[in-house]
Amino acid sequence: MKIKVINPNTSVSMTHKIGLAAQMVASPGTEIIACNPEMGPISIEGHYDEALSVVGVLDEIHKGEAEGVDGYVIACFGDPGLLAARELAKGPVVGIAEAAMHTASFISTGFSIVTTLSRTRLIAQHLVNNYGMTRLCRNIRAINLPVLSLEADAQAKNLILQECKNAMIEDECGAIVLGCGGMADLAIQLRQQLGIPVIDGVGAAVKFVEVLIGLELGTSKVGDLAYPISKPVVGMLSSFTL
Amino acid sequence: MKIKVINPNTSVSMTHKIGLAAQMVASPGTEIIACNPEMGPISIEGHYDEALSVVGVLDEIHKGEAEGVDGYVIACFGDPGLLAARELAKGPVVGIAEAAMHTASFISTGFSIVTTLSRTRLIAQHLVNNYGMTRLCRNIRAINLPVLSLEADAQAKNLILQECKNAMIEDECGAIVLGCGGMADLAIQLRQQLGIPVIDGVGAAVKFVEVLIGLELGTSKVGDLAYPISKPVVGMLSSFTL
Amino acid sequence: MKIKVINPNTSVSMTHKIGLAAQMVASPGTEIIACNPEMGPISIEGHYDEALSVVGVLDEIHKGEAEGVDGYVIACFGDPGLLAARELAKGPVVGIAEAAMHTASFISTGFSIVTTLSRTRLIAQHLVNNYGMTRLCRNIRAINLPVLSLEADAQAKNLILQECKNAMIEDECGAIVLGCGGMADLAIQLRQQLGIPVIDGVGAAVKFVEVLIGLELGTSKVGDLAYPISKPVVGMLSSFTL
Amino acid sequence: MKIKVINPNTSVSMTHKIGLAAQMVASPGTEIIACNPEMGPISIEGHYDEALSVVGVLDEIHKGEAEGVDGYVIACFGDPGLLAARELAKGPVVGIAEAAMHTASFISTGFSIVTTLSRTRLIAQHLVNNYGMTRLCRNIRAINLPVLSLEADAQAKNLILQECKNAMIEDECGAIVLGCGGMADLAIQLRQQLGIPVIDGVGAAVKFVEVLIGLELGTSKVGDLAYPISKPVVGMLSSFTL
Amino acid sequence: MKIKVINPNTSVSMTHKIGLAAQMVASPGTEIIACNPEMGPISIEGHYDEALSVVGVLDEIHKGEAEGVDGYVIACFGDPGLLAARELAKGPVVGIAEAAMHTASFISTGFSIVTTLSRTRLIAQHLVNNYGMTRLCRNIRAINLPVLSLEADAQAKNLILQECKNAMIEDECGAIVLGCGGMADLAIQLRQQLGIPVIDGVGAAVKFVEVLIGLELGTSKVGDLAYPISKPVVGMLSSFTL
Amino acid sequence: MKIKVINPNTSVSMTHKIGLAAQMVASPGTEIIACNPEMGPISIEGHYDEALSVVGVLDEIHKGEAEGVDGYVIACFGDPGLLAARELAKGPVVGIAEAAMHTASFISTGFSIVTTLSRTRLIAQHLVNNYGMTRLCRNIRAINLPVLSLEADAQAKNLILQECKNAMIEDECGAIVLGCGGMADLAIQLRQQLGIPVIDGVGAAVKFVEVLIGLELGTSKVGDLAYPISKPVVGMLSSFTL
Repeated sequence: MKIKVINPNTSVSMTHKIGLAAQMVASPGTEIIACNPEMGPISIEGHYDEALSVVGVLDEIHKGEAEGVDGYVIACFGDPGLLAARELAKGPVVGIAEAAMHTASFISTGFSIVTTLSRTRLIAQHLVNNYGMTRLCRNIRAINLPVLSLEADAQAKNLILQECKNAMIEDECGAIVLGCGGMADLAIQLRQQLGIPVIDGVGAAVKFVEVLIGLELGTSKVGDLAYPISKPVVGMLSSFTL
Repeated sequence: MKIKVINPNTSVSMTHKIGLAAQMVASPGTEIIACNPEMGPISIEGHYDEALSVVGVLDEIHKGEAEGVDGYVIACFGDPGLLAARELAKGPVVGIAEAAMHTASFISTGFSIVTTLSRTRLIAQHLVNNYGMTRLCRNIRAINLPVLSLEADAQAKNLILQECKNAMIEDECGAIVLGCGGMADLAIQLRQQLGIPVIDGVGAAVKFVEVLIGLELGTSKVGDLAYPISKPVVGMLSSFTL
Repeated sequence: MKIKVINPNTSVSMTHKIGLAAQMVASPGTEIIACNPEMGPISIEGHYDEALSVVGVLDEIHKGEAEGVDGYVIACFGDPGLLAARELAKGPVVGIAEAAMHTASFISTGFSIVTTLSRTRLIAQHLVNNYGMTRLCRNIRAINLPVLSLEADAQAKNLILQECKNAMIEDECGAIVLGCGGMADLAIQLRQQLGIPVIDGVGAAVKFVEVLIGLELGTSKVGDLAYPISKPVVGMLSSFTL
Repeated sequence: MKIKVINPNTSVSMTHKIGLAAQMVASPGTEIIACNPEMGPISIEGHYDEALSVVGVLDEIHKGEAEGVDGYVIACFGDPGLLAARELAKGPVVGIAEAAMHTASFISTGFSIVTTLSRTRLIAQHLVNNYGMTRLCRNIRAINLPVLSLEADAQAKNLILQECKNAMIEDECGAIVLGCGGMADLAIQLRQQLGIPVIDGVGAAVKFVEVLIGLELGTSKVGDLAYPISKPVVGMLSSFTL
Repeated sequence: MKIKVINPNTSVSMTHKIGLAAQMVASPGTEIIACNPEMGPISIEGHYDEALSVVGVLDEIHKGEAEGVDGYVIACFGDPGLLAARELAKGPVVGIAEAAMHTASFISTGFSIVTTLSRTRLIAQHLVNNYGMTRLCRNIRAINLPVLSLEADAQAKNLILQECKNAMIEDECGAIVLGCGGMADLAIQLRQQLGIPVIDGVGAAVKFVEVLIGLELGTSKVGDLAYPISKPVVGMLSSFTL
Repeated sequence: MKIKVINPNTSVSMTHKIGLAAQMVASPGTEIIACNPEMGPISIEGHYDEALSVVGVLDEIHKGEAEGVDGYVIACFGDPGLLAARELAKGPVVGIAEAAMHTASFISTGFSIVTTLSRTRLIAQHLVNNYGMTRLCRNIRAINLPVLSLEADAQAKNLILQECKNAMIEDECGAIVLGCGGMADLAIQLRQQLGIPVIDGVGAAVKFVEVLIGLELGTSKVGDLAYPISKPVVGMLSSFTL
């Protein structure tokens, strides 16, 4: 089966990192297609960035449908464009935030999210509420480093580790949810350092998509997530006409 | 003061209708600039349409900021791009769904929403929840006509009237919220026919924006709605780089 | 149009202050009638005070209806008697707590309330819940000064300023809601000192009432807020027989 | 011990009926003092009536404290003035709505409320929410007869019985909560006719007050329910100055 | 009337203490039968312990029904097996956690729970949510001593007192709910030391069961709590076949 | 990897059916061990049955840990003993109700549950609430056949099909969740007949356990789900002493 893992921002190095994380957990029969849109912001750190990134996500779903992709992962912790993507896709589409939180709910009774910039916590909070995780999510913490400095900044790893430790003590959480696709490579090491489950949404989402495809469960096409109604889309976005 | 009323879809005739509704309620000193984006879907009837429309909304906010606009109305009942728009704008930004629901909360203890297509009800439901209106909203009803047929279809008015009557009897609502910017011209007549408040969000939103500007209350620029972080936006969307 | 701004307590100096705040924001065609009841407690700092104040509020609505008043503001942060007042009134009735919170919801994603006495925080909490603001209200803070000392106490302003600063840092709020009608004169100065929106409910409520009257939206008279059923009221309250 | 059962409306015949219901369940050592205020509406069928009735309730609590009353029942299903009364009283104060709902929660997993007029259902709904009974309350039903016709109208009993039967079938409720103090005499007969628990709040509240007094548990006087702050109350209400 | 007070763990000394607390508050005509199951864990400090204890609780209900018991108290703060017990019993069954929380809701606007081990707080949190007490419960605190050391440990009383004081200051609670059946003997002394209501669920539950029996209100046998369907139960549990 | 699929009731034929469903979806490297407890009720149709079944579930987990089982499925729609099982297990434990609901949340915006007996709907409702699925679950429907007649009754399949159709029309759901482990064999056929996703929790749970094991995510052993505290368990249950 073909699973397209879409990094919604346009940072190629992050796409590479996310692709590796996906590849690492994929089953033998799974082909991982890691990509990022050709258009959009280089990182997603607020509502504006997120809104712009959705266009590229939808473009990639579009192309994926033509290419026979069986399912999709949206690999940014805000799950940008999730419902719109589901309208477009026949197969399943899973966001890494929802995948990570659902995973945490299976193995703990309370988790904390550790993310990058403080201002993105609100986006995570909305997801927590929409996904019915209000009772399970004990806190949303930020290390206050920009998304792209996760790679560049030698301090990033330490800051994340420290914030996870704070979460364990102050929030008494049973698991950590990593709140950024760019942290996908840190889960295993952190788990060993902390002694509690640390969940990377990229891996979880890839596996859930595999599961859904394996169970022959695609997106429901009756009702709210039915294919979009065909209509003119004009101007710069005219290529999005269905 | 200058208020830009953005019809998020690209239907010029609907922009005209919305502009008239805005003009009708505007205070003497208010300049109404009704517009629609140069890009995007011709109507918004689902998550895909909505996601695409946001780009155009943000483009109009962008231009508005350069043109000295004091505040904005997003004139589609899904309030597409509301938080992203608030990041961009110095002044207030109000969506017609939130304006209509808040208005209803001032004059009734329960309202029903009457909208166009059944599949858009989920979008309205999300807004109801996010705006804290869960207890007040008694029902979300659809007439099952496409947005653009509100103008063309001679039956549309009757269907809306009938659905409002059903709402009064079955939901025992005290007010009706019109669930589509394209119904902006119907509120007064329906109010007379039904004998209860019927609320058009376009008018309400224009007035609320006037109020906020008058009170010198712009969007909070501390925290979650601070201006977007400057960064490259690439490809087709490169003009959105701040 | 005539808007009656009712200070529910019987402190004439506070009525004067509230009247000035209302006058300052009123539109040219609006006549502000600031008043307080002839009966009731001199300040409202608990459930007992509040319950007694409602009688006077209703008396003022009563008289207002006879005098051709078009709409009302209830200018105490507990919004005492709001639903009962709406039963009596043809036009709109808006409380300053609801006006302030709805305003905050338009321009921020989280606000803190700063009020007077600690024991009144529970009343505010009930309103937050009833108005659907649970997610938006980050904290309710008290300066622990009695309502009437807002005028007398030279320290009051400083205490409020300090508590607002605490709110910004500890609650990470994007806006401040002033939790007492007696703080109506402080909003503008605090806004300048703090750099975030500071919302006085008196001004906001006056404007919202103007908006509702302008849109010809009175209180829904079908269902829960219909005029009270005519019946004997006996004893000291016999003048309240409709 | 002395328990004052306050019928908040001024209908003496209903006070009589409520007094009998209280007397019937009281323990040997309990003295029941059934009363109604000297002032206020003759029945409570909306927010206006309820607001006015609170004054009389507080007057009765006042007098009760002077007379050495140990605890109080507020015998109207809207529990008017409950928190204000608790501020005034040293001992416990229990409303019949809360008593009935808590009782229902001990013996069923879902109850329906059957009340008088449709417009009072909103008041009951607020109580359901405030008392944390949202999940347990399956429906609030009205027979659409005025409160005082419960005595006069020969049909009243049948209408109530029929509505209870509807509740059992349509709501699949396990218990019925009678939604009016004036129905206190019907519980036992209805229980026999229906075969499920039918709960009259008057009896339940009297017993709960006995329990609280017996356990030496009065109203908490630390914090929100501390005695009201002493201050002038002027005009018609000056006798309420503490 | 006969009330069986079931200590769900198998510690005989704790059963004795609970029995004394029950006896102390029982009415003259009430026969208290304090017992603990013949099987199960010696203390309940987690989900596993709790699950095992339920078997014994049901065994005691079983025997109680044969012995003509009129009502039951489940005297462990997790209210183990409450709904299953209600299926078995004709009369009322009340848990001490629900009894204590409902009691607190009658006399305060916010309570804190003080319990033994930190890991049991989650169980209490579930009950708080299920009983609709989310808004009223300000905090759940643990002294981090095992249940059985409440008797042995000389420090236990002091730790509890200290934690109650912390709750008063930090949670600003109006009442304390003791979160363990083994604390039943401490309520009165703590109340005197703290000056606010301190609620022991054992006493409260006994009185509520008396009330329900007195009002002839047994468990609803229509619907969810109807007697269990008769069917084979095999193996070690075969004696539980009905 | 070894996954133990525990049918919590003691019906061997149902265990066989559940085992087949598990086997059908298991990955090549997965060994499915389908079992049912040696003790307990032959079917689970209420709180009493469920409470008794938990003992057997825990016994199977116990044995599983000794046998080197990597993860567990609890294959009854009430997810009996889930948290207690998680305390005992090192690896992941997933219930079929949670697995099915989480699956539905990935591919639809609203699902209906179709279960057996009406009285079990309350158990499902508790799970819906506890799992944060309140908004997603549109209805819980019962066909009113006992669990064991799913096999015997020729009508069962038709009743289920009909109830699913009712759900599609009346609840406008996008997916069906089968509310009983005994329906595990019907999902595929129903999906073909209905044209929307029909989710069997057995298959979903097996796959989720595989995923969690594959990601090396066991149950969090810090905090609430830490191994039970070692202590005496006496009487009939003495073998449960850890």
